[in-house]
Amino acid sequence: MKNYPSETIFRLASYLRVLSRLGEDRQNISSFELGKILKINPNQVRKDLSYFGRFGRRGIGYKINELIKHLRDILGINRKWNVALCGWGNLGKALSSYRGFLEQGFIIKVIFDKDPKKLGRKVSDNINIKSIEEIEESIKKYSIKIVILAVPAEEAQSMAERFYKAGIRAILNFAPTNIVLASDCLVRNVDMSSELSYLSYYLAHR
Amino acid sequence: MKNYPSETIFRLASYLRVLSRLGEDRQNISSFELGKILKINPNQVRKDLSYFGRFGRRGIGYKINELIKHLRDILGINRKWNVALCGWGNLGKALSSYRGFLEQGFIIKVIFDKDPKKLGRKVSDNINIKSIEEIEESIKKYSIKIVILAVPAEEAQSMAERFYKAGIRAILNFAPTNIVLASDCLVRNVDMSSELSYLSYYLAHR
Repeated sequence: MKNYPSETIFRLASYLRVLSRLGEDRQNISSFELGKILKINPNQVRKDLSYFGRFGRRGIGYKINELIKHLRDILGINRKWNVALCGWGNLGKALSSYRGFLEQGFIIKVIFDKDPKKLGRKVSDNINIKSIEEIEESIKKYSIKIVILAVPAEEAQSMAERFYKAGIRAILNFAPTNIVLASDCLVRNVDMSSELSYLSYYLAHR
Repeated sequence: MKNYPSETIFRLASYLRVLSRLGEDRQNISSFELGKILKINPNQVRKDLSYFGRFGRRGIGYKINELIKHLRDILGINRKWNVALCGWGNLGKALSSYRGFLEQGFIIKVIFDKDPKKLGRKVSDNINIKSIEEIEESIKKYSIKIVILAVPAEEAQSMAERFYKAGIRAILNFAPTNIVLASDCLVRNVDMSSELSYLSYYLAHR
Protein backbone atom coordinates (compact mmCIF):
# COMPACT_ATOMS: atom_id res chain seq x y z
CA MET A 1 0.00 0.00 0.00
CA LYS A 2 1.38 3.39 -0.96
CA ASN A 3 1.58 5.82 1.90
CA TYR A 4 -0.70 8.64 0.96
CA PRO A 5 -1.49 11.02 3.82
CA SER A 6 -4.44 9.70 5.80
CA GLU A 7 -5.99 13.18 5.51
CA THR A 8 -6.05 12.72 1.74
CA ILE A 9 -8.03 9.50 2.08
CA PHE A 10 -10.53 11.23 4.37
CA ARG A 11 -10.91 14.10 1.94
CA LEU A 12 -11.52 11.63 -0.92
CA ALA A 13 -14.38 10.22 1.17
CA SER A 14 -15.74 13.77 1.60
CA TYR A 15 -15.50 14.44 -2.15
CA LEU A 16 -17.39 11.25 -2.83
CA ARG A 17 -20.09 12.14 -0.32
CA VAL A 18 -20.62 15.56 -1.87
CA LEU A 19 -20.59 14.26 -5.45
CA SER A 20 -23.06 11.48 -4.61
CA ARG A 21 -25.48 14.03 -3.16
CA LEU A 22 -25.26 16.50 -6.05
CA GLY A 23 -27.84 14.40 -7.84
CA GLU A 24 -28.12 13.81 -11.52
CA ASP A 25 -28.85 17.39 -12.51
CA ARG A 26 -25.33 18.17 -13.51
CA GLN A 27 -22.46 16.48 -15.27
CA ASN A 28 -19.30 18.41 -14.35
CA ILE A 29 -17.79 20.07 -11.34
CA SER A 30 -14.62 22.13 -10.94
CA SER A 31 -12.09 21.73 -8.16
CA PHE A 32 -13.05 25.29 -7.20
CA GLU A 33 -16.71 24.39 -6.65
CA LEU A 34 -15.94 21.13 -4.87
CA GLY A 35 -13.50 22.95 -2.61
CA LYS A 36 -16.01 25.70 -1.90
CA ILE A 37 -18.70 23.26 -0.75
CA LEU A 38 -16.27 21.58 1.63
CA LYS A 39 -14.27 24.68 2.57
CA ILE A 40 -11.11 23.10 1.17
CA ASN A 41 -8.56 24.93 -0.99
CA PRO A 42 -9.06 23.93 -4.68
CA ASN A 43 -5.30 23.32 -4.99
CA GLN A 44 -5.67 20.73 -2.27
CA VAL A 45 -8.57 19.10 -4.12
CA ARG A 46 -6.49 18.85 -7.29
CA LYS A 47 -3.46 17.58 -5.40
CA ASP A 48 -5.46 14.88 -3.58
CA LEU A 49 -6.94 13.59 -6.81
CA SER A 50 -3.68 13.82 -8.76
CA TYR A 51 -2.14 11.11 -6.56
CA PHE A 52 -4.46 8.61 -8.21
CA GLY A 53 -4.56 9.69 -11.84
CA ARG A 54 -5.54 12.50 -14.18
CA PHE A 55 -9.27 12.85 -13.79
CA GLY A 56 -10.04 16.47 -14.61
CA ARG A 57 -9.83 18.56 -17.75
CA ARG A 58 -8.70 22.13 -17.85
CA GLY A 59 -11.67 24.47 -18.27
CA ILE A 60 -14.22 21.67 -17.88
CA GLY A 61 -13.44 20.19 -14.50
CA TYR A 62 -14.30 16.68 -13.46
CA LYS A 63 -17.02 14.52 -14.95
CA ILE A 64 -19.08 13.75 -11.87
CA ASN A 65 -20.11 10.19 -12.74
CA GLU A 66 -16.58 9.21 -13.72
CA LEU A 67 -15.09 10.76 -10.61
CA ILE A 68 -17.61 8.96 -8.40
CA LYS A 69 -16.60 5.68 -9.98
CA HIS A 70 -12.88 6.39 -9.59
CA LEU A 71 -13.30 7.43 -5.96
CA ARG A 72 -15.28 4.30 -5.16
CA ASP A 73 -12.52 2.20 -6.74
CA ILE A 74 -9.78 4.03 -4.84
CA LEU A 75 -11.59 3.81 -1.50
CA GLY A 76 -12.37 0.14 -1.96
CA ILE A 77 -16.12 0.69 -1.70
CA ASN A 78 -16.87 -0.56 -5.20
CA ARG A 79 -17.80 -3.77 -3.40
CA LYS A 80 -19.58 -4.91 -0.24
CA TRP A 81 -17.73 -5.36 3.06
CA ASN A 82 -19.03 -7.63 5.78
CA VAL A 83 -18.73 -5.98 9.16
CA ALA A 84 -19.11 -7.21 12.75
CA LEU A 85 -20.26 -4.89 15.50
CA CYS A 86 -19.07 -5.60 19.02
CA GLY A 87 -21.05 -4.03 21.86
CA TRP A 88 -24.80 -3.60 21.92
CA GLY A 89 -25.10 -0.57 24.18
CA ASN A 90 -26.49 2.80 23.14
CA LEU A 91 -23.57 3.50 20.81
CA GLY A 92 -23.73 0.04 19.24
CA LYS A 93 -27.46 0.48 18.62
CA ALA A 94 -26.88 3.90 17.08
CA LEU A 95 -24.10 2.62 14.83
CA SER A 96 -26.12 -0.41 13.72
CA SER A 97 -28.76 1.87 12.26
CA TYR A 98 -26.36 4.51 10.93
CA ARG A 99 -27.53 5.15 7.39
CA GLY A 100 -24.11 6.20 6.10
CA PHE A 101 -22.61 2.73 6.57
CA LEU A 102 -25.04 0.82 4.41
CA GLU A 103 -24.99 3.53 1.73
CA GLN A 104 -21.29 2.89 1.28
CA GLY A 105 -21.52 -0.88 1.17
CA PHE A 106 -20.65 -1.69 4.78
CA ILE A 107 -23.03 -4.40 5.93
CA ILE A 108 -23.26 -5.40 9.56
CA LYS A 109 -23.63 -9.19 9.49
CA VAL A 110 -23.23 -10.07 13.13
CA ILE A 111 -23.32 -8.37 16.53
CA PHE A 112 -21.48 -9.56 19.64
CA ASP A 113 -22.18 -8.68 23.24
CA LYS A 114 -20.94 -10.21 26.48
CA ASP A 115 -24.17 -9.60 28.39
CA PRO A 116 -25.96 -12.99 28.64
CA LYS A 117 -29.31 -11.19 28.83
CA LYS A 118 -28.85 -9.82 25.30
CA LEU A 119 -27.79 -13.08 23.66
CA GLY A 120 -29.99 -14.43 20.92
CA ARG A 121 -31.99 -11.21 20.75
CA LYS A 122 -33.16 -10.52 17.22
CA VAL A 123 -31.88 -7.15 16.01
CA SER A 124 -33.21 -7.41 12.47
CA ASP A 125 -34.44 -10.11 10.10
CA ASN A 126 -30.99 -11.58 9.67
CA ILE A 127 -29.09 -10.56 12.76
CA ASN A 128 -29.12 -12.14 16.22
CA ILE A 129 -26.82 -11.05 19.03
CA LYS A 130 -24.08 -13.59 19.61
CA SER A 131 -21.79 -14.26 22.55
CA ILE A 132 -18.08 -13.44 22.69
CA GLU A 133 -17.39 -17.17 22.58
CA GLU A 134 -18.81 -17.32 19.06
CA ILE A 135 -16.42 -14.72 17.62
CA GLU A 136 -13.98 -17.07 15.89
CA GLU A 137 -16.68 -19.19 14.29
CA SER A 138 -18.79 -16.21 13.17
CA ILE A 139 -15.86 -14.29 11.66
CA LYS A 140 -15.30 -17.25 9.35
CA LYS A 141 -18.94 -18.04 8.70
CA TYR A 142 -19.83 -14.47 7.64
CA SER A 143 -16.48 -13.60 5.99
CA ILE A 144 -16.10 -10.61 8.30
CA LYS A 145 -13.29 -8.25 7.27
CA ILE A 146 -13.92 -5.21 9.46
CA VAL A 147 -14.90 -4.93 13.13
CA ILE A 148 -16.54 -1.92 14.78
CA LEU A 149 -15.85 -1.78 18.51
CA ALA A 150 -18.44 -0.02 20.65
CA VAL A 151 -17.51 -1.48 24.03
CA PRO A 152 -16.46 0.28 27.27
CA ALA A 153 -12.90 1.69 27.26
CA GLU A 154 -11.59 -0.91 29.70
CA GLU A 155 -12.68 -3.80 27.45
CA ALA A 156 -11.55 -2.37 24.10
CA GLN A 157 -7.93 -3.56 24.04
CA SER A 158 -8.68 -7.17 25.02
CA MET A 159 -11.59 -7.41 22.57
CA ALA A 160 -9.41 -6.00 19.80
CA GLU A 161 -6.75 -8.62 20.54
CA ARG A 162 -9.34 -11.37 20.37
CA PHE A 163 -10.53 -10.18 16.96
CA TYR A 164 -6.93 -9.87 15.77
CA LYS A 165 -6.31 -13.50 16.75
CA ALA A 166 -9.44 -14.46 14.83
CA GLY A 167 -7.88 -12.95 11.69
CA ILE A 168 -9.33 -9.43 11.62
CA ARG A 169 -6.96 -6.79 10.19
CA ALA A 170 -9.11 -3.65 10.26
CA ILE A 171 -10.78 -2.29 13.39
CA LEU A 172 -12.77 0.87 13.98
CA ASN A 173 -12.65 1.66 17.70
CA PHE A 174 -15.21 4.02 19.24
CA ALA A 175 -14.16 3.40 22.84
CA PRO A 176 -12.37 6.45 24.29
CA THR A 177 -8.98 4.74 24.50
CA ASN A 178 -6.11 4.11 22.09
CA ILE A 179 -5.93 0.48 21.04
CA VAL A 180 -2.51 -0.77 20.00
CA LEU A 181 -2.11 -3.94 17.90
CA ALA A 182 0.57 -5.41 15.64
CA SER A 183 1.42 -3.26 12.64
CA ASP A 184 -0.28 -5.58 10.14
CA CYS A 185 -3.66 -4.55 11.57
CA LEU A 186 -5.11 -1.10 10.92
CA VAL A 187 -6.84 0.35 13.96
CA ARG A 188 -8.69 3.64 13.71
CA ASN A 189 -9.35 5.11 17.13
CA VAL A 190 -12.30 7.47 16.77
CA ASP A 191 -12.14 10.15 19.42
CA MET A 192 -15.39 12.05 19.41
CA SER A 193 -14.14 14.58 21.95
CA SER A 194 -11.37 15.74 19.58
CA GLU A 195 -14.14 17.15 17.40
CA LEU A 196 -15.41 19.11 20.40
CA SER A 197 -11.85 20.33 21.09
CA TYR A 198 -11.83 21.74 17.57
CA LEU A 199 -15.00 23.69 18.31
CA SER A 200 -13.62 25.01 21.60
CA TYR A 201 -10.39 25.96 19.83
CA TYR A 202 -12.46 27.94 17.34
CA LEU A 203 -14.56 29.64 20.02
CA ALA A 204 -11.51 30.47 22.17
CA HIS A 205 -9.53 32.03 19.32
CA ARG A 206 -12.02 33.78 17.08
CA MET B 1 -8.34 33.29 14.46
CA LYS B 2 -5.20 32.23 12.63
CA ASN B 3 -5.75 29.61 10.01
CA TYR B 4 -3.77 26.62 11.15
CA PRO B 5 -4.59 23.43 9.26
CA SER B 6 -7.56 21.71 10.91
CA GLU B 7 -5.50 18.50 10.88
CA THR B 8 -2.99 20.22 13.16
CA ILE B 9 -5.69 21.03 15.68
CA PHE B 10 -6.88 17.41 15.65
CA ARG B 11 -3.35 16.17 16.16
CA LEU B 12 -2.91 18.55 19.10
CA ALA B 13 -5.98 16.92 20.66
CA SER B 14 -4.37 13.50 20.09
CA TYR B 15 -1.11 14.63 21.67
CA LEU B 16 -3.01 15.88 24.69
CA ARG B 17 -4.92 12.61 25.00
CA VAL B 18 -1.74 10.56 24.94
CA LEU B 19 0.12 12.83 27.35
CA SER B 20 -2.79 12.86 29.79
CA ARG B 21 -2.81 9.06 29.87
CA LEU B 22 0.94 8.63 30.32
CA GLY B 23 0.37 9.13 34.03
CA GLU B 24 2.70 10.76 36.48
CA ASP B 25 5.51 8.24 36.19
CA ARG B 26 7.54 10.30 33.78
CA GLN B 27 8.43 13.91 33.25
CA ASN B 28 9.66 14.23 29.66
CA ILE B 29 8.78 12.89 26.25
CA SER B 30 10.48 13.32 22.87
CA SER B 31 8.71 14.10 19.61
CA PHE B 32 10.02 10.72 18.45
CA GLU B 33 8.23 8.83 21.22
CA LEU B 34 5.04 10.85 20.94
CA GLY B 35 5.04 10.27 17.18
CA LYS B 36 5.66 6.56 17.63
CA ILE B 37 2.67 6.09 19.94
CA LEU B 38 0.38 7.84 17.47
CA LYS B 39 2.08 6.63 14.28
CA ILE B 40 2.83 10.22 13.28
CA ASN B 41 6.15 11.40 11.86
CA PRO B 42 8.18 13.18 14.61
CA ASN B 43 8.86 16.07 12.21
CA GLN B 44 5.11 16.55 11.99
CA VAL B 45 4.84 16.54 15.79
CA ARG B 46 7.51 19.24 16.05
CA LYS B 47 5.96 21.27 13.24
CA ASP B 48 2.47 21.15 14.78
CA LEU B 49 3.75 22.33 18.14
CA SER B 50 6.06 24.97 16.67
CA TYR B 51 3.07 26.93 15.35
CA PHE B 52 2.22 27.81 18.94
CA GLY B 53 5.59 28.41 20.60
CA ARG B 54 8.88 26.76 21.51
CA PHE B 55 7.98 24.05 23.97
CA GLY B 56 10.69 21.42 23.60
CA ARG B 57 14.41 21.33 24.36
CA ARG B 58 16.98 19.64 22.20
CA GLY B 59 18.07 16.35 23.76
CA ILE B 60 15.46 16.49 26.52
CA GLY B 61 12.18 16.70 24.66
CA TYR B 62 9.02 18.18 26.09
CA LYS B 63 8.18 18.52 29.76
CA ILE B 64 4.94 16.59 29.91
CA ASN B 65 3.15 18.70 32.52
CA GLU B 66 4.04 21.94 30.77
CA LEU B 67 3.02 20.63 27.38
CA ILE B 68 -0.33 19.43 28.75
CA LYS B 69 -0.98 22.91 30.11
CA HIS B 70 -0.01 24.58 26.84
CA LEU B 71 -2.16 22.22 24.78
CA ARG B 72 -5.16 22.80 27.03
CA ASP B 73 -4.69 26.55 26.63
CA ILE B 74 -4.36 26.31 22.86
CA LEU B 75 -7.38 24.03 22.47
CA GLY B 76 -9.51 26.22 24.72
CA ILE B 77 -10.18 23.39 27.16
CA ASN B 78 -8.52 25.11 30.11
CA ARG B 79 -12.08 26.01 31.06
CA LYS B 80 -15.55 24.42 31.11
CA TRP B 81 -17.89 24.62 28.11
CA ASN B 82 -21.63 24.28 28.49
CA VAL B 83 -23.05 22.06 25.79
CA ALA B 84 -26.58 21.27 24.60
CA LEU B 85 -27.43 17.92 23.06
CA CYS B 86 -30.26 17.80 20.53
CA GLY B 87 -31.81 14.39 19.86
CA TRP B 88 -32.41 11.71 22.47
CA GLY B 89 -32.27 8.60 20.33
CA ASN B 90 -29.64 5.86 20.60
CA LEU B 91 -26.85 8.13 19.41
CA GLY B 92 -27.88 10.96 21.73
CA LYS B 93 -27.95 8.57 24.67
CA ALA B 94 -24.53 7.22 23.75
CA LEU B 95 -23.06 10.71 23.39
CA SER B 96 -24.58 11.89 26.68
CA SER B 97 -22.63 9.26 28.58
CA TYR B 98 -19.45 9.50 26.49
CA ARG B 99 -16.66 9.71 29.03
CA GLY B 100 -14.29 11.65 26.80
CA PHE B 101 -16.51 14.73 26.76
CA LEU B 102 -16.64 15.34 30.48
CA GLU B 103 -12.91 14.57 30.84
CA GLN B 104 -12.16 17.50 28.57
CA GLY B 105 -14.51 19.95 30.25
CA PHE B 106 -17.52 19.65 27.94
CA ILE B 107 -20.59 19.53 30.15
CA ILE B 108 -23.98 18.66 28.73
CA LYS B 109 -26.37 21.02 30.50
CA VAL B 110 -29.57 20.46 28.56
CA ILE B 111 -31.06 17.94 26.13
CA PHE B 112 -33.73 18.71 23.53
CA ASP B 113 -36.02 16.29 21.77
CA LYS B 114 -39.12 16.86 19.67
CA ASP B 115 -40.86 13.69 20.83
CA PRO B 116 -43.56 14.75 23.34
CA LYS B 117 -43.31 11.35 25.05
CA LYS B 118 -39.72 12.08 26.08
CA LEU B 119 -40.32 15.58 27.44
CA GLY B 120 -39.61 16.16 31.09
CA ARG B 121 -37.88 12.81 31.45
CA LYS B 122 -35.06 12.97 33.97
CA VAL B 123 -31.76 11.94 32.37
CA SER B 124 -29.58 12.65 35.38
CA ASP B 125 -29.77 14.62 38.60
CA ASN B 126 -29.61 17.96 36.82
CA ILE B 127 -30.88 17.26 33.33
CA ASN B 128 -34.46 16.98 32.10
CA ILE B 129 -35.36 16.61 28.44
CA LYS B 130 -36.80 19.82 27.05
CA SER B 131 -38.92 20.57 24.00
CA ILE B 132 -37.71 22.28 20.84
CA GLU B 133 -39.82 25.30 21.83
CA GLU B 134 -37.59 25.84 24.86
CA ILE B 135 -34.36 26.15 22.84
CA GLU B 136 -34.01 29.94 22.86
CA GLU B 137 -34.75 30.28 26.57
CA SER B 138 -32.50 27.37 27.61
CA ILE B 139 -29.53 28.50 25.50
CA LYS B 140 -29.53 31.75 27.47
CA LYS B 141 -30.35 30.23 30.84
CA TYR B 142 -27.51 27.68 30.71
CA SER B 143 -25.00 29.84 28.77
CA ILE B 144 -24.76 27.17 26.09
CA LYS B 145 -21.89 27.73 23.63
CA ILE B 146 -21.76 24.44 21.73
CA VAL B 147 -24.53 22.23 20.35
CA ILE B 148 -24.22 18.54 19.53
CA LEU B 149 -26.77 17.44 16.93
CA ALA B 150 -27.83 13.79 17.03
CA VAL B 151 -31.06 14.06 15.06
CA PRO B 152 -32.14 12.29 11.84
CA ALA B 153 -30.47 13.58 8.65
CA GLU B 154 -33.64 15.21 7.36
CA GLU B 155 -34.02 17.34 10.50
CA ALA B 156 -30.39 18.37 10.92
CA GLN B 157 -30.31 21.48 8.71
CA SER B 158 -33.46 23.07 10.13
CA MET B 159 -32.44 22.35 13.71
CA ALA B 160 -29.00 23.84 13.06
CA GLU B 161 -30.62 26.99 11.69
CA ARG B 162 -32.77 27.29 14.77
CA PHE B 163 -29.74 27.05 17.06
CA TYR B 164 -27.89 29.56 14.90
CA LYS B 165 -30.75 32.02 15.29
CA ALA B 166 -30.60 31.44 19.05
CA GLY B 167 -26.98 32.62 19.01
CA ILE B 168 -25.01 29.35 18.76
CA ARG B 169 -21.78 29.61 16.74
CA ALA B 170 -20.33 26.11 17.11
CA ILE B 171 -22.17 22.94 16.12
CA LEU B 172 -21.05 19.33 16.07
CA ASN B 173 -23.29 17.43 13.67
CA PHE B 174 -23.53 13.64 13.83
CA ALA B 175 -26.38 13.34 11.32
CA PRO B 176 -25.14 11.85 8.03
CA THR B 177 -25.64 15.05 6.04
CA ASN B 178 -23.61 18.21 5.45
CA ILE B 179 -25.09 21.17 7.29
CA VAL B 180 -24.36 24.58 5.79
CA LEU B 181 -24.70 27.78 7.84
CA ALA B 182 -23.34 31.35 7.66
CA SER B 183 -19.56 31.56 7.80
CA ASP B 184 -19.53 33.01 11.32
CA CYS B 185 -20.69 29.64 12.67
CA LEU B 186 -18.35 26.66 12.77
CA VAL B 187 -20.07 23.41 11.85
CA ARG B 188 -18.20 20.13 12.10
CA ASN B 189 -19.98 17.41 10.16
CA VAL B 190 -18.87 14.10 11.65
CA ASP B 191 -19.10 11.38 9.05
CA MET B 192 -18.61 8.06 10.76
CA SER B 193 -18.63 6.16 7.47
CA SER B 194 -15.53 8.03 6.24
CA GLU B 195 -13.63 6.18 8.94
CA LEU B 196 -14.90 2.91 7.50
CA SER B 197 -13.86 4.05 4.02
CA TYR B 198 -10.35 4.46 5.34
CA LEU B 199 -10.37 0.87 6.57
CA SER B 200 -11.68 -0.44 3.26
CA TYR B 201 -9.07 1.64 1.42
CA TYR B 202 -6.43 -0.04 3.54
CA LEU B 203 -7.82 -3.55 3.02
CA ALA B 204 -8.22 -3.01 -0.73
CA HIS B 205 -4.68 -1.73 -1.28
CA ARG B 206 -2.46 -3.62 1.13
